[in-house]
Amino acid sequence: MIVDALIEKIVQTQNPVCVGLDTAFSYLPEEMQRACGAEERAAAVLEFNKKIVDGVCDIVPAVKVQIAYYEALGEFGLSCFSKTCRYAKERGLFVIADAKRNDIGATAAQYAEAFFGEGGFPCDMLTVNGYLGTDGVAPFAELCRQRDKALFVLVKTSNPSSGELQDLHLQDGRTVYECMGDMVEEWGRGACGKYGYSRVGAVVGATYPEEAKALRARLPHTFFLIPGYGAQGGNAEMLKHSFAKGGMGGIVNNSRGILCAYRKRGGTFYGAAREAALEMRADLRSVLGEICAN
Amino acid sequence: MIVDALIEKIVQTQNPVCVGLDTAFSYLPEEMQRACGAEERAAAVLEFNKKIVDGVCDIVPAVKVQIAYYEALGEFGLSCFSKTCRYAKERGLFVIADAKRNDIGATAAQYAEAFFGEGGFPCDMLTVNGYLGTDGVAPFAELCRQRDKALFVLVKTSNPSSGELQDLHLQDGRTVYECMGDMVEEWGRGACGKYGYSRVGAVVGATYPEEAKALRARLPHTFFLIPGYGAQGGNAEMLKHSFAKGGMGGIVNNSRGILCAYRKRGGTFYGAAREAALEMRADLRSVLGEICAN
Repeated sequence: MIVDALIEKIVQTQNPVCVGLDTAFSYLPEEMQRACGAEERAAAVLEFNKKIVDGVCDIVPAVKVQIAYYEALGEFGLSCFSKTCRYAKERGLFVIADAKRNDIGATAAQYAEAFFGEGGFPCDMLTVNGYLGTDGVAPFAELCRQRDKALFVLVKTSNPSSGELQDLHLQDGRTVYECMGDMVEEWGRGACGKYGYSRVGAVVGATYPEEAKALRARLPHTFFLIPGYGAQGGNAEMLKHSFAKGGMGGIVNNSRGILCAYRKRGGTFYGAAREAALEMRADLRSVLGEICAN
Repeated sequence: MIVDALIEKIVQTQNPVCVGLDTAFSYLPEEMQRACGAEERAAAVLEFNKKIVDGVCDIVPAVKVQIAYYEALGEFGLSCFSKTCRYAKERGLFVIADAKRNDIGATAAQYAEAFFGEGGFPCDMLTVNGYLGTDGVAPFAELCRQRDKALFVLVKTSNPSSGELQDLHLQDGRTVYECMGDMVEEWGRGACGKYGYSRVGAVVGATYPEEAKALRARLPHTFFLIPGYGAQGGNAEMLKHSFAKGGMGGIVNNSRGILCAYRKRGGTFYGAAREAALEMRADLRSVLGEICAN
């Protein structure tokens, strides 16, 4: 079961970190930015991604590939997205597609096919938006069961205005994000692996530690994808409560802090990325201790 | 201003209908379904779409292209999506990309670039999901102002379980979808065209007529994209209250009912699609009367 396998890889690397391949063209070193057309730019991004993957694949368990940066380059970008996912899998990494897809039943099934099927993008896990309710999420969850994949549903996002809707209180006293979290637990019911986490996880931002702490207690079977570390302001101290005992139950994303580490550290971009990923591991380990699946 | 131009085209065609190019490969006539690889399938879908566009381009103002069906065919599908949008524009149709995109600020800006920029997909309007709040929508709205484009934010969706979250009551008495609707009015403020509608529209399903009626009154500056007519169960009587005086303020989508009309009517698929679009116009006109921009 894929969430078990991810957990085992986190324990093996002692690093609950995924490297965010949100590769804006502008993140590339100057000498790689000479390309001008979308096709050349996509080729440069692919070359960059492959070297990042080579640089980190033995010390992190996963990458999160943010599809928006590839869509911005049109069909060439999406070919690059596909090849990036495939390359990361070949190098033994779990691939989380960060696409926040959502639609009604029959159409959601098409998206599920795109990310978990044969013809589209080769991914292990996918972020989705649950605003449409159960019949917008069920087709994704169904294909996850059939093909051993997993989801992360947006619950409490890391951006400054996430609270405008998500923090509002419902008449039953819950916030909107708590309600979404409860739906996520429900959607994952009966699909738990041996470590107690289901295929239907949640996106819970590192930038809201109090909310994350409460959600960690509220959603015991939900694995968290935690964005917001680094550039967005989240740090290890803030996100220690996003984890359960033994540093279990979550994986923290870092994109710019790793991809652009070379600008602060010097050296090659892939060497600097590796150093940044190791430093992030040390930072997380300083609050989480030894990570163990109990 | 693009919403004004869409309104004028609706008046000219007397048809507030968009044809949904949610072209599942299985919708194609049998003789077009011989392709097996993703590349061939995408080519067959493009041929089908072009003939549909040719069949309806003088009697409808717009198409809505549902990107999920193209993503399911991977990079070839997305090339087909791009070419479909371009062809529809060349034939004088407004192109609504139904992609329900959403993300935090910098990433949302990449999606906006993908759909409204130079390198990606050539669209006029885009559906987005507002669960992340203002800073998830603002980058789209900003590019809309710069490049004369428009948005439709999901407010009350047409699917059976849309109410699980959207119908819940907040402590201030509003439902979640009313709250989202109010945010949509706010996001559109100061960007109204001469007919009083802003660039930030709303998706309001035809399958919930009472809710649509209340939203029509509540959101006077918000243009509606109305899915759910036909296969999903919406009919003209149910959606007449989604419109303001003079049949203004909305456009109704029909996908399967037009693309697959040939299965019921016989004849060519594009001829049947044209007949179905004309019949739908007559159906809507029977409740809306003469459509006029006042």
